[in-house]
Amino acid sequence: MSVDEDTGASGEARFVEELADKDDFSQWYQDTVRKAEMAEDSPVRGCMIIRPYGYAIWENAQRGIDDRIKATGHENAYFPLFIPGSFLQREAEHVEGFAPEVAWVTRAGSEELAEPLVVRPTSETIIGHAYARWVQSYRDLPLLINQWANVVRWEKRTRLFLRTSEFLWQEGHTVHRTEDDAERETLLILHQVYQDFVERELAMPVIPGLKSDSERFAGALRTYTLEAMMGDGKALQAGTSHNLGQNFARAFDIKFQDADGQVKIAWTTSWGMSTRIIGALVMVHGDASGLRLPPRVAPTQAIIVPIWRKEAEREAVAAVVAEVEATLRAAGVRVKADWREERPGFKYSHWELRGVPLRIEIGPRDAQKGEVVLVPRTDRTAKESVAVGELGSRVPALLDEIQRALYDQAVAFRASRTYRASSFDELAERMADREHLGFVEAWWCGDAACEAEVKTRTQATIRCLPLDQPGGSGACVRCGKPAAKWAVFGKAY
Amino acid sequence: MSVDEDTGASGEARFVEELADKDDFSQWYQDTVRKAEMAEDSPVRGCMIIRPYGYAIWENAQRGIDDRIKATGHENAYFPLFIPGSFLQREAEHVEGFAPEVAWVTRAGSEELAEPLVVRPTSETIIGHAYARWVQSYRDLPLLINQWANVVRWEKRTRLFLRTSEFLWQEGHTVHRTEDDAERETLLILHQVYQDFVERELAMPVIPGLKSDSERFAGALRTYTLEAMMGDGKALQAGTSHNLGQNFARAFDIKFQDADGQVKIAWTTSWGMSTRIIGALVMVHGDASGLRLPPRVAPTQAIIVPIWRKEAEREAVAAVVAEVEATLRAAGVRVKADWREERPGFKYSHWELRGVPLRIEIGPRDAQKGEVVLVPRTDRTAKESVAVGELGSRVPALLDEIQRALYDQAVAFRASRTYRASSFDELAERMADREHLGFVEAWWCGDAACEAEVKTRTQATIRCLPLDQPGGSGACVRCGKPAAKWAVFGKAY
Repeated sequence: MSVDEDTGASGEARFVEELADKDDFSQWYQDTVRKAEMAEDSPVRGCMIIRPYGYAIWENAQRGIDDRIKATGHENAYFPLFIPGSFLQREAEHVEGFAPEVAWVTRAGSEELAEPLVVRPTSETIIGHAYARWVQSYRDLPLLINQWANVVRWEKRTRLFLRTSEFLWQEGHTVHRTEDDAERETLLILHQVYQDFVERELAMPVIPGLKSDSERFAGALRTYTLEAMMGDGKALQAGTSHNLGQNFARAFDIKFQDADGQVKIAWTTSWGMSTRIIGALVMVHGDASGLRLPPRVAPTQAIIVPIWRKEAEREAVAAVVAEVEATLRAAGVRVKADWREERPGFKYSHWELRGVPLRIEIGPRDAQKGEVVLVPRTDRTAKESVAVGELGSRVPALLDEIQRALYDQAVAFRASRTYRASSFDELAERMADREHLGFVEAWWCGDAACEAEVKTRTQATIRCLPLDQPGGSGACVRCGKPAAKWAVFGKAY
Repeated sequence: MSVDEDTGASGEARFVEELADKDDFSQWYQDTVRKAEMAEDSPVRGCMIIRPYGYAIWENAQRGIDDRIKATGHENAYFPLFIPGSFLQREAEHVEGFAPEVAWVTRAGSEELAEPLVVRPTSETIIGHAYARWVQSYRDLPLLINQWANVVRWEKRTRLFLRTSEFLWQEGHTVHRTEDDAERETLLILHQVYQDFVERELAMPVIPGLKSDSERFAGALRTYTLEAMMGDGKALQAGTSHNLGQNFARAFDIKFQDADGQVKIAWTTSWGMSTRIIGALVMVHGDASGLRLPPRVAPTQAIIVPIWRKEAEREAVAAVVAEVEATLRAAGVRVKADWREERPGFKYSHWELRGVPLRIEIGPRDAQKGEVVLVPRTDRTAKESVAVGELGSRVPALLDEIQRALYDQAVAFRASRTYRASSFDELAERMADREHLGFVEAWWCGDAACEAEVKTRTQATIRCLPLDQPGGSGACVRCGKPAAKWAVFGKAY
């Protein structure tokens, strides 16, 4: 069906209507993920199907993470999916943390297994067992390995990308000679790999910080996190990096002969980032029309919508479309043309829902003038007509602007939803205001009892103690006693 | 330790001694895979650990396969690891084929599962279930999806890469409107994706052919295969592409409304290539000194071995090494310099064992002359001195020559071990000659009883009916009756 250029508006309404209002954030999220064909539930409880569009975003994210992991000297490897049940027992905190949510393989073919196997919820134990063999001398250190894998944690309540029984991730596992080396690695990953990736590629501002003991990884000495604010003001942990101290090295006997001839226990770290960040991407940037993808991870960065009425017009438009596609591909832009027999308005909303950063409209009058109209997803009113010859430079620059705009908007939103509280009532009031929910910064005395009390009464947890501490001290937001820790409280996904 | 240039020989002996003689091919294979640090056994029966060196080869292979899968119009997605037990039952041949080797999850946390879950041995069923929802109209076809995943098949006897209880692979699953479309897809994958990848990237010649019914994939209409000859004359299936006909579409109700308004059952295909090909790579190209990697998939294509005695020499050599590294990186060569404090001979054998295609020796006299010595892994006697300024063009050309040489040598070896048999005795004699084992081409009447009889008496199976059939007919190698099928027999991995 060929149509008028001006039927856009009515077509546009078609999809947008189908998304829940963004005030019902949870439903809006589910609608967006499903209708943009990113993912859907599977017949296996809590396990999702990542559809091609969602997976293409994940592949771009993987590349961004993997490049940084390799640039910082790590290599990839692959360890078994299954872990002997006894391995999990070796580190006391670890087994306590993971036992309630592991899936067990008890049978293979017709045979009952003598020792049931755990489907890995994380791989510290199976990898620690190998490292004990690989590490003999200080010359073998540091050992810097990462793996891309699926892991399983049996979850009671699941949500696409955010919490699923099976998810995809990378998990890094390293061994070091000294505590300092391990700490340096933990922070290197936090900043140079994770924060750099999340902020530059996903355009998502994060707060790097330390987890309180109650939120530490089971078996770690210290857990560092990146906390991001979602579009409803809730917090999401975008990646974690753990200094495991000597806990796993002791449990798995990872020892080395040092230069001084002494046999010493090694220091290990682990760190992971998962498909969860795709959910975060949706929740940080999405709007009433659906996804808004940062150009750097968008599978399609620019979508061309040709507009025509008569067959002769179609031919003239097609010639320009072909030229634009060739120009943009040569400029390294991921571009597609939508030639379906649908109204332009239908196509506009189709690609808006999918968050394509830039729409390129080409109608008969544009074709005649050798121009196209550029419409950024971040601001549909900012249309600009650009000569075809200038697209090779203008489009990459505009994509950079869109990437920047998404980041700036997220920073501004977070700033508008970040509060300070000097009393418990103030904190509780902020956490009760659903419409303006956000982060609350406050002093904390460090007592787990205060933290627990806040959680019980407000559902807020300490998301992190930001690495960038203001210094000085104040009164604990809960007990009023002297407090030296500046904490970020929030309701978490 | 700085050393003489001429201590190479004794150092060289150090590793080579440790590999079993290639006549004991099975032990040689295990030694090579382990000592080159490609993979090792894990504490979980039959599951391997792929170490960084082996995994880097797999990553290069993945890129070669993935690029071709995408270039032929397919997209990646991800489906759940677990499959409801009942799904497996829906296709009769399929469950019969896979039930004996599946791992079962029966428990999660402390809860016994109402319906036990199968850890996917392959994903036709769980994907078929999703496709039934996604395919409604002929406009939804073809549906062209691939996934990269781990799968589990509980194997009794395992061997690193070749047969492991867990392995990594890609599995493509497509849906088509007609039988012709499905058949075209099956062959497109066989030739343009798999054969092109295996021959060009892995330098491994293969015979594309059809499997006999007894070797068909459980549930398929037709299975196509690529058969490669290993260094001991045995056959290995390097990849398979299945035309599933309407079997899975019927079992999972994948139907569509065609342009004529009729609701029709769809046609599906599936195809896979796994970490097994890494084992094949070792067995096709390896020699008495270890691996020989085709440059296109080698993690390190050129290894620089600096040679020096005095500190002043080291400095002069270092300057040239730095220049060579920069030149080669700019030319797109994956290059590394080995500055360890070991004898050159030790380093030579270290990198030969790991199959690095090209060694670059740089000693003080070379440095002075502005030259280096190039030593290809494929022919250590073919040393050539090349001026540093020419390396940017000479090394890429030499890597191409090495890639070609490996392919040509494999073709020549296969030709020297391919026989024709016109009688059963001839066939049996060939299969009994362990030292000259290879493929035997012969006529086959098509009767499964003849095939089974050959297998029982010689352990040889029909590897495939080559797509390139000579035409005409002859007498069946087993029963002597008229036969129109030209078959390749071999002992298989």
